[in-house]
Amino acid sequence: MGKVYLVGAGPGACDLLTVRAARLLARADVVFHDALVEPDVLHLAPDAVKVAVGKRCGAHSTSQRFINKRLVDAAARYDTVVRLKGGDPMLFGRAQEEIDALVDAGVDVEVVPGVTAALAAAADLNVSLTRRGVARSVTLVTPRAGEGESPHAWTRAAAAADTAVIYMGAGEATSIVAALLAAGVPTDHPVALVENAGRDRETHCAGALCDLPRLAAARGTGPAVILLGEVARALVAQESAPAAIVLRRATG
Amino acid sequence: MGKVYLVGAGPGACDLLTVRAARLLARADVVFHDALVEPDVLHLAPDAVKVAVGKRCGAHSTSQRFINKRLVDAAARYDTVVRLKGGDPMLFGRAQEEIDALVDAGVDVEVVPGVTAALAAAADLNVSLTRRGVARSVTLVTPRAGEGESPHAWTRAAAAADTAVIYMGAGEATSIVAALLAAGVPTDHPVALVENAGRDRETHCAGALCDLPRLAAARGTGPAVILLGEVARALVAQESAPAAIVLRRATG
Repeated sequence: MGKVYLVGAGPGACDLLTVRAARLLARADVVFHDALVEPDVLHLAPDAVKVAVGKRCGAHSTSQRFINKRLVDAAARYDTVVRLKGGDPMLFGRAQEEIDALVDAGVDVEVVPGVTAALAAAADLNVSLTRRGVARSVTLVTPRAGEGESPHAWTRAAAAADTAVIYMGAGEATSIVAALLAAGVPTDHPVALVENAGRDRETHCAGALCDLPRLAAARGTGPAVILLGEVARALVAQESAPAAIVLRRATG
Repeated sequence: MGKVYLVGAGPGACDLLTVRAARLLARADVVFHDALVEPDVLHLAPDAVKVAVGKRCGAHSTSQRFINKRLVDAAARYDTVVRLKGGDPMLFGRAQEEIDALVDAGVDVEVVPGVTAALAAAADLNVSLTRRGVARSVTLVTPRAGEGESPHAWTRAAAAADTAVIYMGAGEATSIVAALLAAGVPTDHPVALVENAGRDRETHCAGALCDLPRLAAARGTGPAVILLGEVARALVAQESAPAAIVLRRATG
């Protein structure tokens, strides 16, 4: 019986995985990966069979059950099975369902944490999520509701924290703004939108909460997070300056 | 003029840094590090001058100003200056003060994100922070108040989220429980205490919120995070079983 490693692929750049993750990929027999995992990251597993298993967080429960079964089957056939998830496995990654299925089947499981998009975005922006005197709570949320969940339960948590980072929300900016305003967030609260955080084609822009639909409409097709809070105020001031759009490149 | 890299050292194990962080350490001329950074991690920078600069998050503003000045001075003298911080630099790490001082001095700065303790703890526990149908918001908070900050402002954010991870709080468990109860968290809400998350001497225990002072009193001297939320309920059930304390070892 092999072992299954649920591994965080980090935010995208192939040097933003952990050393442990890179070593596991180098000796993996098979890698099951999300659509968001970059091809360069998969090249770290030259000898492994690669299996793409649906888009991150978008899989229906039936296909999730199918992924669970494939992981259990792979553990019977291979020594080192890697389940590679964008960012960190334990944040918005359906990891628990896979862990529970593997444990129930008697398969040894280990989770290797990763750098999540909120932290990659903060690094790209040069903005601490917990600037002293301004913020000492950070909420990571997604407006994507699961079955039977209230569609706006996330807003209370986002509004209560000093800083909020919203995952998988850029495509529904208008309803997010409406929900946050209803939860008491001021219309001029600073926001930043970071696309491709932790990748070499990262871009970002900033403004007031009420500007978010306009900012989101101008973005590309890469994964994006929305940063909300006073810590983003300096970015908004920069955006008002002439050289508004800042492009940064990660270290090669 | 050299460049200063604010680098996340990750949770402790020397293979839980990013590949980028490890490569930077390998070519660093000087490394300024927190007390929480493990000696094994510093061995990744064999050729660098190592400078210990106070304990993480505990430095007074005067000594923080002194650290800022030393970083600026180091950039004038060395090509590659690494400021190594436990976990991720942008969470509870005073990064903004250092970034602002460096930018003001005209020094080029780059932040390399890291794995934060909350994610290392989730990996060690095999517990997703966002189990589907149970949690889709996670708040990372510290009860450590800065100057002029309300000592209990963090509780609202912790109580509003589905899952909360409390950093640097294990030493004040009694006042944390009182504050959370006052914020409306039920006395039997599941909690887990994880000591040395992401290190090979990791240990954890779980119980109800009202048990937290007892759990905290039994812990050792390593850094600890408190995980609060329904996602921890399965752990509490395990603790009630005969083999109560689970010790896990990270991959070598």
